[in-house]
Amino acid sequence: MASTWSNNISFSVFGESHGPAIGVVMDNVPPGESIDMDKLLQFMARRAPKKDATSTQRREKDLPQIMSGFLNGKTTGTPLCAFIQNTDQHSQDYMKSKLDTLVRPGHADYTGALRYRGFNDVRGGGHFSGRLTAPLCFAGAVCGQILEKRGIYVGAHIAEIHKIKDDSFDSVVTSREDIMRIREKAFPVINDEKGKRMKRDIEKARMSMDSVGGVVECIAVNVPAGIGSPIFDGLENSIAQLIFGIPAVKGLEFGAGFNASKMLGSENNDEFYVDDKGHVVTRSNFAGGILGGISTGMPITLRVAFKPTPSIAQPQQTIDMKNRTNETIEIKGRHDPCVVPRAVPCVEAAVNIALLNHMLQYPNF
Amino acid sequence: MASTWSNNISFSVFGESHGPAIGVVMDNVPPGESIDMDKLLQFMARRAPKKDATSTQRREKDLPQIMSGFLNGKTTGTPLCAFIQNTDQHSQDYMKSKLDTLVRPGHADYTGALRYRGFNDVRGGGHFSGRLTAPLCFAGAVCGQILEKRGIYVGAHIAEIHKIKDDSFDSVVTSREDIMRIREKAFPVINDEKGKRMKRDIEKARMSMDSVGGVVECIAVNVPAGIGSPIFDGLENSIAQLIFGIPAVKGLEFGAGFNASKMLGSENNDEFYVDDKGHVVTRSNFAGGILGGISTGMPITLRVAFKPTPSIAQPQQTIDMKNRTNETIEIKGRHDPCVVPRAVPCVEAAVNIALLNHMLQYPNF
Amino acid sequence: MASTWSNNISFSVFGESHGPAIGVVMDNVPPGESIDMDKLLQFMARRAPKKDATSTQRREKDLPQIMSGFLNGKTTGTPLCAFIQNTDQHSQDYMKSKLDTLVRPGHADYTGALRYRGFNDVRGGGHFSGRLTAPLCFAGAVCGQILEKRGIYVGAHIAEIHKIKDDSFDSVVTSREDIMRIREKAFPVINDEKGKRMKRDIEKARMSMDSVGGVVECIAVNVPAGIGSPIFDGLENSIAQLIFGIPAVKGLEFGAGFNASKMLGSENNDEFYVDDKGHVVTRSNFAGGILGGISTGMPITLRVAFKPTPSIAQPQQTIDMKNRTNETIEIKGRHDPCVVPRAVPCVEAAVNIALLNHMLQYPNF
Amino acid sequence: MASTWSNNISFSVFGESHGPAIGVVMDNVPPGESIDMDKLLQFMARRAPKKDATSTQRREKDLPQIMSGFLNGKTTGTPLCAFIQNTDQHSQDYMKSKLDTLVRPGHADYTGALRYRGFNDVRGGGHFSGRLTAPLCFAGAVCGQILEKRGIYVGAHIAEIHKIKDDSFDSVVTSREDIMRIREKAFPVINDEKGKRMKRDIEKARMSMDSVGGVVECIAVNVPAGIGSPIFDGLENSIAQLIFGIPAVKGLEFGAGFNASKMLGSENNDEFYVDDKGHVVTRSNFAGGILGGISTGMPITLRVAFKPTPSIAQPQQTIDMKNRTNETIEIKGRHDPCVVPRAVPCVEAAVNIALLNHMLQYPNF
Repeated sequence: MASTWSNNISFSVFGESHGPAIGVVMDNVPPGESIDMDKLLQFMARRAPKKDATSTQRREKDLPQIMSGFLNGKTTGTPLCAFIQNTDQHSQDYMKSKLDTLVRPGHADYTGALRYRGFNDVRGGGHFSGRLTAPLCFAGAVCGQILEKRGIYVGAHIAEIHKIKDDSFDSVVTSREDIMRIREKAFPVINDEKGKRMKRDIEKARMSMDSVGGVVECIAVNVPAGIGSPIFDGLENSIAQLIFGIPAVKGLEFGAGFNASKMLGSENNDEFYVDDKGHVVTRSNFAGGILGGISTGMPITLRVAFKPTPSIAQPQQTIDMKNRTNETIEIKGRHDPCVVPRAVPCVEAAVNIALLNHMLQYPNF
Repeated sequence: MASTWSNNISFSVFGESHGPAIGVVMDNVPPGESIDMDKLLQFMARRAPKKDATSTQRREKDLPQIMSGFLNGKTTGTPLCAFIQNTDQHSQDYMKSKLDTLVRPGHADYTGALRYRGFNDVRGGGHFSGRLTAPLCFAGAVCGQILEKRGIYVGAHIAEIHKIKDDSFDSVVTSREDIMRIREKAFPVINDEKGKRMKRDIEKARMSMDSVGGVVECIAVNVPAGIGSPIFDGLENSIAQLIFGIPAVKGLEFGAGFNASKMLGSENNDEFYVDDKGHVVTRSNFAGGILGGISTGMPITLRVAFKPTPSIAQPQQTIDMKNRTNETIEIKGRHDPCVVPRAVPCVEAAVNIALLNHMLQYPNF
Repeated sequence: MASTWSNNISFSVFGESHGPAIGVVMDNVPPGESIDMDKLLQFMARRAPKKDATSTQRREKDLPQIMSGFLNGKTTGTPLCAFIQNTDQHSQDYMKSKLDTLVRPGHADYTGALRYRGFNDVRGGGHFSGRLTAPLCFAGAVCGQILEKRGIYVGAHIAEIHKIKDDSFDSVVTSREDIMRIREKAFPVINDEKGKRMKRDIEKARMSMDSVGGVVECIAVNVPAGIGSPIFDGLENSIAQLIFGIPAVKGLEFGAGFNASKMLGSENNDEFYVDDKGHVVTRSNFAGGILGGISTGMPITLRVAFKPTPSIAQPQQTIDMKNRTNETIEIKGRHDPCVVPRAVPCVEAAVNIALLNHMLQYPNF
Repeated sequence: MASTWSNNISFSVFGESHGPAIGVVMDNVPPGESIDMDKLLQFMARRAPKKDATSTQRREKDLPQIMSGFLNGKTTGTPLCAFIQNTDQHSQDYMKSKLDTLVRPGHADYTGALRYRGFNDVRGGGHFSGRLTAPLCFAGAVCGQILEKRGIYVGAHIAEIHKIKDDSFDSVVTSREDIMRIREKAFPVINDEKGKRMKRDIEKARMSMDSVGGVVECIAVNVPAGIGSPIFDGLENSIAQLIFGIPAVKGLEFGAGFNASKMLGSENNDEFYVDDKGHVVTRSNFAGGILGGISTGMPITLRVAFKPTPSIAQPQQTIDMKNRTNETIEIKGRHDPCVVPRAVPCVEAAVNIALLNHMLQYPNF
């Protein structure tokens, strides 16, 4: 199912960028879980366009209205539906440009038109728009609050922007506090000096009518050992399926990831030991907290590669789909010169959903 | 479902390394498709242990017996079940060592025991064994033959072993012939000189009782444009869910992948044009043939990172699960010093399955 | 997934009787299908409370607002979400009664409270309310219009009310016109004389503060032969799974159904023959148009048993869930003395969805 | 998926009547559950052909071999695969008759050929054969043993054969012992006098080269209240989806079922009360232990209608599929004149699977 993910939890994302509303229906959320709406809105605000130069200047309020499955501040256990009205679209302008027939390079305009035989709503990217990550963030924020009550915290930061690297999470000793510290930042990096360089780079891309890509690193702490399943339903499979649902993602790695391919077994193996408190832990964590699809009890770590925003103001060669002619496109309007800052909570959201999903299968949840 | 993948096609992998048999049931394979058993066995033989120094010396015959869904050389459309008997296991030896209580670093021994509360079969890795990729390859070989009749070819090669890099597929002009040439090689690389260096490196790891990791690059050519779906059911999501079902995979990237995160939008965007024959194509293919989860018609390219084989002969620190004590483990027996050569057809198999799965949704299949 | 049905089409029903809204998200509806909104509202109006004595007098407008997946009168292929605001609920009154702790006999008040550990919304039956059939009817109406463009018509009528029987559809020769004739009736029966008796019986039940049950018979004509699958994914399985999603359904039979159990094989077997036009048909249709889960090309017939409305005004014995005491309950408010007339389009809706779902798997759809 | 059922448990049935083997793969069975193989074989023996006149005289040994997921008498939690070799088929004889082109009335020969475009194995009914209920019974027997350890017992009996009715289970007070008593009978009825009449009737049908249908009644006792879900994933939906996977089933009703449609609400509502032990129970059980898809804690009761065996020795009119001509068919070989006695454990199996499936979702399982 295209926009429905179904496992222990299922959720179904709907809507188009310039339609009346976007939203999500979550099925099989456990009943009786308190959801703090202020915290939820804070989570979603992290995805919203920033008020500074690093982001689009389109105003999106993205206020979710809960339509079902929620009563007296708690989940009811029945489907939880949230709705976000679209208020700020300028479809008229959009249709006046030739964006309905000129396909934008790097976008799904061409592939979407083929897939839906020309019937899909192309305004603002339609169902392919990055706006569809708002319902993902809603769902992820709900799951995150349920996990946090069990002590499980998921955090992410901008790990790279266009070759400029932030410091990394310590994959062995990162704490809840480390996560919370970054979550409060407007520009979520570990090392703010690096962050400044990144922001300058993003601003430079904007000034040259260009865009830049980057990497988000994510960590989940206090996930109990033994969560997940082998083969096709492991933590990596579920996280991957959800992460590749975020637009512009082109790569995903767990633990040492692609670097593991350059290592010797004697370097990469994380040796187990029983620590002072009698816990089974490992000294290194190149596995990223997952072996055989199942959590080891060490932090779960992953890195997600984002391509540069495809919407750039420079003239580009492309085709007119209707006439099948070669044309030049100039994309108007304000677009994020880099999606990575706003993608940070999206990555957290995907990981929250995958983790809660697997946690539900455990008797002592 | 742990070992069942269910989408347009479903398939269910079963078995343990030292049990009576392993196998797979495939449901919803289209009827009337000829399967050439010789070609299928050739595909599976590429996954079998090599007779040279790069691989384990355990003899595995891996002859699949088809139990259902196949008649007169053609699929019937009803569930296709294949069976591979386990014949060469030495469980007695295995149990005499302490491998049932000493957990091997980098393996799922520890996580599997927690997940299954100690009831899973640990002999030879049990259900977590790399042997379970044999039924995956069976399923992938069947799907591959069905795709090839539609002109779609999937090929892969060893792209890296422990920092030694092979040449890459040309992501714009790779042909069926390029794919077939590599498929026939015992050590599947593009550049045989690089291959020799890789083999020496693997042999060196073996001699030092160590192991090495690597990267497999995969390409699919002639996939029609418009295959796949947005959000959670795109080509990337399906391929990812299957690829992370192969043991030792720690990373996955499509097209430019992690490199895309280092690029400018003006570099990374693939400009469309209508070529001489009236086809819509792109000059570059940093997207790896996928935009918005849907095929562009250009080759689909991906790279998969494998960690070094965790079973190494060197003594390693670990724990005894029963007594929760710190111990030293020495893993006996012959293990591949590098899984990557045998993983090449496994990656192809996963991509074959994902592609056929999405092709089935199209009216003109 | 509780309220999500997922096969070739998936759809997810959400909402509570007294919440802000109810609705449905449909995923994988084919693109480019015209939906006539007037016809859709007519379909839904058949489920709405009647203005006469056979039905509740609560006003429900049930105007669906389409939020996504629909543009210029046609489906886009992306998720189709419809929304129905709840406007007429009197929750204050509801909570003042003791209906939150006294469980209504024959309702899901008790079982729902256990299932959701007391956190579900009980007002008006919450997610268990018959109101949730409105989104089912929306989805069914959409699917029905898509089927009708392929010549497939699904119709239903009140076959029995409290032992009073209507005539039956002719399972061999029923036509599109026969179906349309009944669809236009305010009280959908074949034989209006029988209908009058039924209405009197319903009115009598209301006057005695009681309720009555009944049977809906449904037929689908022009379904091509060969649609469906064996074992768990046949037409009967899918229809059954959806039909038992309608509140108050307690039985379902196809073709001769329970009567087939009283027959000899020589009576029950439908003999095939090739008719004048070269079509393969059967003289009788005790199979109800389905053999081995797959359509025969003859009309598909089924009968659905509904229990009497559990909400009756008479005092009944029950328990107080909070105090676990034996109590007497008197259910206030206006309830349908018989759900069967309003259930007729619900049964059609379920059959429409199941049929379109299976039709999608066919290349020549 | 045609022959795969996927919910909390998934299982995939494979094989053809005259192929090498039939079998089943069960995924997500909980680990550490003891399975008594003798009891399992006893369960399956109840489905095997009887040695008396009521059943076919084909010898089927149906000895399941467990290939995976089972170690030291306990489930491992990984996929449980069982295999049943086909040994007694006479395919040569079969193909010599014209059964490959003459379609048998009442069978899936015609519909299967269309569905699989003529590529399915038609020998002995192929994948549509009643033999495929052997793997269903295997799966059901496994689930039943797991349920019985939690005190939940499922039993069934022949409720009707061709209008001759057995007594019914008491839907309020049936005990484990009542169930076990019937389970031991060669001809499972409550009232053996009625059983004798049924047997005579079956024998009479055989002598007249005819067949008879019947009804199986099933009961599940000690199912805790609160199991199941609303709308599409209730107990009724799941049971229905599985029950309609048994060949020859044409109807299904829960509790009072079709009789409920003839009742007043005041008759049909089961009043709740708190009994001496403080348990919430109902005096009657017309609901069949299910309200809103969720168990009430009272016995779950259902009745399943089976059509008469379509394979009868009398000459019947039919068509030749290849030549599309009208022909007469005479079905040779020995067929059950009534499938109902052998269907009794199949119904239990389906209910066992559905119940265990829903039980798994509960924390205190």
